[in-house]
Amino acid sequence: TSSYRIASIPGDGIGVDVTVEARKVLDRAATSHGFSLSWQEFDWSCERYTKTGAMMPDDGIEQLSRFDGIFLGAVGFPGVPDHVSLWGLLIPVRRAFTQYVNLRPVRLLPGTTSALAGRTAEELEMVIVRENSEGEYSEIGGRHNRGQENEFVLQESVFTRVGVERIIRYAFELAKTRTGRVCSATKSNGLIHSMPFWDEIFAEVSSDYPDVQAEQCHVDALAARMVQAPDRLDVVVGSNLFGDILSDLAAAVTGGLGMAPSGNINPTGEFPSMFEAVHGSAPDIAGQGIANPVAQILAGAMMLDHLGETVAAQNIHAAVEKVLEEGTVQTPDLGGKSTTAELGSAVVAAL
Amino acid sequence: TSSYRIASIPGDGIGVDVTVEARKVLDRAATSHGFSLSWQEFDWSCERYTKTGAMMPDDGIEQLSRFDGIFLGAVGFPGVPDHVSLWGLLIPVRRAFTQYVNLRPVRLLPGTTSALAGRTAEELEMVIVRENSEGEYSEIGGRHNRGQENEFVLQESVFTRVGVERIIRYAFELAKTRTGRVCSATKSNGLIHSMPFWDEIFAEVSSDYPDVQAEQCHVDALAARMVQAPDRLDVVVGSNLFGDILSDLAAAVTGGLGMAPSGNINPTGEFPSMFEAVHGSAPDIAGQGIANPVAQILAGAMMLDHLGETVAAQNIHAAVEKVLEEGTVQTPDLGGKSTTAELGSAVVAAL
Ligand SMILES: CC(C)[C@H](C(=O)O)[C@@H](O)C(=O)O
Ligand SMILES: CC(C)[C@H](C(=O)O)[C@@H](O)C(=O)O
Repeated sequence: TSSYRIASIPGDGIGVDVTVEARKVLDRAATSHGFSLSWQEFDWSCERYTKTGAMMPDDGIEQLSRFDGIFLGAVGFPGVPDHVSLWGLLIPVRRAFTQYVNLRPVRLLPGTTSALAGRTAEELEMVIVRENSEGEYSEIGGRHNRGQENEFVLQESVFTRVGVERIIRYAFELAKTRTGRVCSATKSNGLIHSMPFWDEIFAEVSSDYPDVQAEQCHVDALAARMVQAPDRLDVVVGSNLFGDILSDLAAAVTGGLGMAPSGNINPTGEFPSMFEAVHGSAPDIAGQGIANPVAQILAGAMMLDHLGETVAAQNIHAAVEKVLEEGTVQTPDLGGKSTTAELGSAVVAAL
Repeated sequence: TSSYRIASIPGDGIGVDVTVEARKVLDRAATSHGFSLSWQEFDWSCERYTKTGAMMPDDGIEQLSRFDGIFLGAVGFPGVPDHVSLWGLLIPVRRAFTQYVNLRPVRLLPGTTSALAGRTAEELEMVIVRENSEGEYSEIGGRHNRGQENEFVLQESVFTRVGVERIIRYAFELAKTRTGRVCSATKSNGLIHSMPFWDEIFAEVSSDYPDVQAEQCHVDALAARMVQAPDRLDVVVGSNLFGDILSDLAAAVTGGLGMAPSGNINPTGEFPSMFEAVHGSAPDIAGQGIANPVAQILAGAMMLDHLGETVAAQNIHAAVEKVLEEGTVQTPDLGGKSTTAELGSAVVAAL
């Protein structure tokens, strides 16, 4: 039987709460589908940072490299600046393992309602393919004339041909397996160096996919479209920042951030991929057992799918949908009174 | 009686259609409120560009500097790359005249429906204060190793202390006249040079306004919030790019882009300010007489307000609301069959 080594990094806040439940579900899926998961847990987090001054040990990346998958809760803690926690863990992992795709599927799950008026579940199914290795998230830049009247900051965005081409190609390949439609987020009217380059490569790649319907849309108009006409969107590909914004927005117009999983994927399989919920660590409700574990459970399903356990992944999806459809076990954000653990157990039972 | 010299630049596409109607309304408002508008029209546009190779003449900025206000339709035309048309007209004007505020109020007007489910008009009233002179829209950057495997592009964002401080201060001053709440869009967890600087200045300025309730929110979460909890937002301040995205989104969650005006404001009054609709030139429906002129009419009202004609501005608002409320004259986007001119005339009549 196949066995997968999984590094679990629950992180901070509700990351810890939801990871426990997702592991219960994944372990049950493993048992009933004839594979095994061998978990190793890492306490890398803001809590660790406040004690040791580092989010993870110096050889953290090396340690993770021995795993088949990385299962991340959420990182972030009041008092630890976000740029410290994220650039000390999340972003280095994404980059060291060339997880250049951040895949963020959204859809309206049963038992949940869209924030939009009069939309059916079919109109609200899409996937954001976010570039995850370069772009606007860059360490290049700095601050000049500190404290002076003429103080200023430079922040560099970096787009490479290799980086842009591979993410766009990934989006086209994905579109072939879905509706055959790709929309590229651009802003070439305002950002006159980076985005015309992005558009040019988008046009080049699209000529390799005559059967895929390719369009591009400025990110401002695209944000409006997600609200006003989401039905005509399916695969949306965007830069690191645009993908970040559009995926939160897409989650909001569908079932909300409590339901949205995310995969940081190294498509070649050379390095482990990392799966997480789109939501953050939500310190305000952490440890109370009221966080919604669905996003993390679905992130687990994405991980199994990535590892090749497609049927198990589908069955987890089906089990989540069954529980949501029944609507008897719901966390407060879904309008119910159940705990994180009760929802987790209900999914296990439904499996 | 006061007289104001207004430069009108209808531009391209529906910019031309809606500007005519807005001028009708403004002229009527002038007559009935005892001031006069002396218009001069400029044909600066993509059409001009295709004929002459320039969006405006070399001394365009100098010509405009003699006016009290600039009334812009929309710019953009198939075949002329957006970065040409915009950096040849819109953006230079914004910068030459230090129009560092882009003010974008949105609210749900009568007779229109929100894309969001179950929201009242009161919950959907906010104003985006967009930084309009620097930030992500920068000419600094370039392309390296063109055509090679290792090709890449750099795009610099530039944030100055002066630029960030003045826009944030403007937002706080505005909040004092409204609900007393300001939310700053940030992304300091991803953009580790520019946004921590922005946040720092936001904190500094906010300490000068103890009575204004200040909060900050990452732009991804803020986009989601506009959809899921718009009721708790009032003044939203953001960088050039974030303000661009959030204002389109805010327009989409309220009455749509056909209703959203925008002012490019030079708060010191040293230079003329420029008023325009948030929507673009929509070449697909241009010249058909079906474009909705409301956004452009409201942009005209913003211009009058800026010039000190507050009562006239309020009355234009009231007239627009009356027409929309009656609902007998509606352009196709509003669900009716009326023309641009009919809607314009109805507003004139209501004045
Ligand atoms: C056309 C474009 C450059 C412009 C901008 O992004 O500033 C437009 O989207 C706007 O919002 O005024
Ligand atoms: C926490 C933050 C750095 C991160 C990002 O922007 O990548 C998060 O918003 C996400 O979407 O994964």
